[in-house]
Amino acid sequence: MKEVKVFAPATVANVVCGFDVLGFAVNEPGDEVVMRLVDEPGVRLLKITGDDGRLPLDSAKNTVSASVQHYLKHLNREDVGVEIELHKKMPIGSGLGSSSASTVAGLYAINQLMGNLLTAKELVPFAMKGEELACGYGHADNVAPALMGGFVLVRSYEPLDLIALPTPKDLFVAIVYPEVDVPTKDARQMIRAKVLLKDAVIQWGNVAGLVSGLFLNDIDLVGRSMKDVLIEPTRSILIPGFEILRELAMENGAVGFGISGSGPSVFALAKDEATARKITDAQQKYLTKLNINSNAYVSSVNAEGPRVI
Amino acid sequence: MKEVKVFAPATVANVVCGFDVLGFAVNEPGDEVVMRLVDEPGVRLLKITGDDGRLPLDSAKNTVSASVQHYLKHLNREDVGVEIELHKKMPIGSGLGSSSASTVAGLYAINQLMGNLLTAKELVPFAMKGEELACGYGHADNVAPALMGGFVLVRSYEPLDLIALPTPKDLFVAIVYPEVDVPTKDARQMIRAKVLLKDAVIQWGNVAGLVSGLFLNDIDLVGRSMKDVLIEPTRSILIPGFEILRELAMENGAVGFGISGSGPSVFALAKDEATARKITDAQQKYLTKLNINSNAYVSSVNAEGPRVI
Repeated sequence: MKEVKVFAPATVANVVCGFDVLGFAVNEPGDEVVMRLVDEPGVRLLKITGDDGRLPLDSAKNTVSASVQHYLKHLNREDVGVEIELHKKMPIGSGLGSSSASTVAGLYAINQLMGNLLTAKELVPFAMKGEELACGYGHADNVAPALMGGFVLVRSYEPLDLIALPTPKDLFVAIVYPEVDVPTKDARQMIRAKVLLKDAVIQWGNVAGLVSGLFLNDIDLVGRSMKDVLIEPTRSILIPGFEILRELAMENGAVGFGISGSGPSVFALAKDEATARKITDAQQKYLTKLNINSNAYVSSVNAEGPRVI
Repeated sequence: MKEVKVFAPATVANVVCGFDVLGFAVNEPGDEVVMRLVDEPGVRLLKITGDDGRLPLDSAKNTVSASVQHYLKHLNREDVGVEIELHKKMPIGSGLGSSSASTVAGLYAINQLMGNLLTAKELVPFAMKGEELACGYGHADNVAPALMGGFVLVRSYEPLDLIALPTPKDLFVAIVYPEVDVPTKDARQMIRAKVLLKDAVIQWGNVAGLVSGLFLNDIDLVGRSMKDVLIEPTRSILIPGFEILRELAMENGAVGFGISGSGPSVFALAKDEATARKITDAQQKYLTKLNINSNAYVSSVNAEGPRVI
């Protein structure tokens, strides 16, 4: 194989209660990477589409090319020549793991071209380096589910310990991205360094409840565990009409609702596609009233991770 | 049935990482209650054995009789006459849910005598009232597993939401109780009210990991999730030679080790009974060198809760 085209999924990090430790992948949206092996050594990012010129074309600075370089260096194969095209098919700075989707598509592509030398799990640390470049913080709660598919628990960062969690049947995701700017770096800086132990206890009861719900295929348990007493009160300030968006989700049949990653995207979980669609319709209608443009995505959970297209 | 004798199990609360939300029951030790229905209305605690006179015989103040009163009041059956004998078969103030075992034995007994009107889960709030009386704090992480058996998650306190977790096959518990005094009230007061968010993240990664390990029947995952960066550093100060006790556990094949409840008992999990026995032997030998008396209990996880004996 000399050329490959790869899709990698967007991801919902935190899943409300599991700040920095939980995330899942969706089937829509996502990014695409086209990658070619060429004779001339080195990694070259030839073009980016769909980013409105916002991403760096410099191969050392772009997360896609930089993580491919990192992968090849690890394999002692810096003699390999690679040409990359990145096609952004999802909004940047949306809280949907945009940088993660690009990085993961690139790593999946190079690993395919090199003969699948590493497993999805083994690719995660390379993708985390890409996250560090993109948002100043090498978190795994987007890249791990983007690579492994489904729900993933980051049990520990040092050492990195990733646990694949089951994906309940008949679970649908209703995502709405309101077009307001919330850079991940700023969203992180707003969070307090210290929290009340009693709030942390509430939080880890819910994290454990959500994980139990996934294993028990109990979507209502997943839903009622989607509470965040620590981060959401701060981050939701940056999202216009957040409490109304929640009411619209719950009124229209969501099992749970919250911020995707650091926002401004919000997501709801629902038991069927029609319900998920009703939720995003109501939320988009409301945002239009506020004169805020929005994108909506209704999708099942992506259980497989990236794929060759 | 006019008389019943009930055993209720000791419990290991917190399970290291799950402060206030996790606990499991063991088959040994535990407490016994003998209860009789009599004609004269009212709840009378006739005698207590095995407590060295440390527990109140006043029916309004003892957790067993008080929670039985509470149960009968709830049912509008204060006309019922009950005589109770409590036989303490486990140490008080040991961190093994001693008050919980007594209370749960009493509630299980009265519920049997009244024709099993409530389920184990429904009895939990009555037992929590007993805990409030005994330790000034109505926590559920001892009484819920003592009543329901196995591992239990307290997903939420308000409203109370209890999730029965699976018990891995071939899991053995090695408990050592060093005879030093650590009252639950004092142990709680030592804990800081505020914690670092980054430590809380480590903690809930481990809580989710432990729960995942139970569902996956992955005892190594359970073991490596048994880490507590928040409470143990403070509470372990009250336990002589805590770090040596840990080393002895891990050296002798434990998958994980930590404080049971608020201590001073420590426990380790192991994959077979012989390993569990090796651990307690080594730890007791060490405590003897420190001139500290100790009790050891090697047991499987109690999956059923209380039983009529």
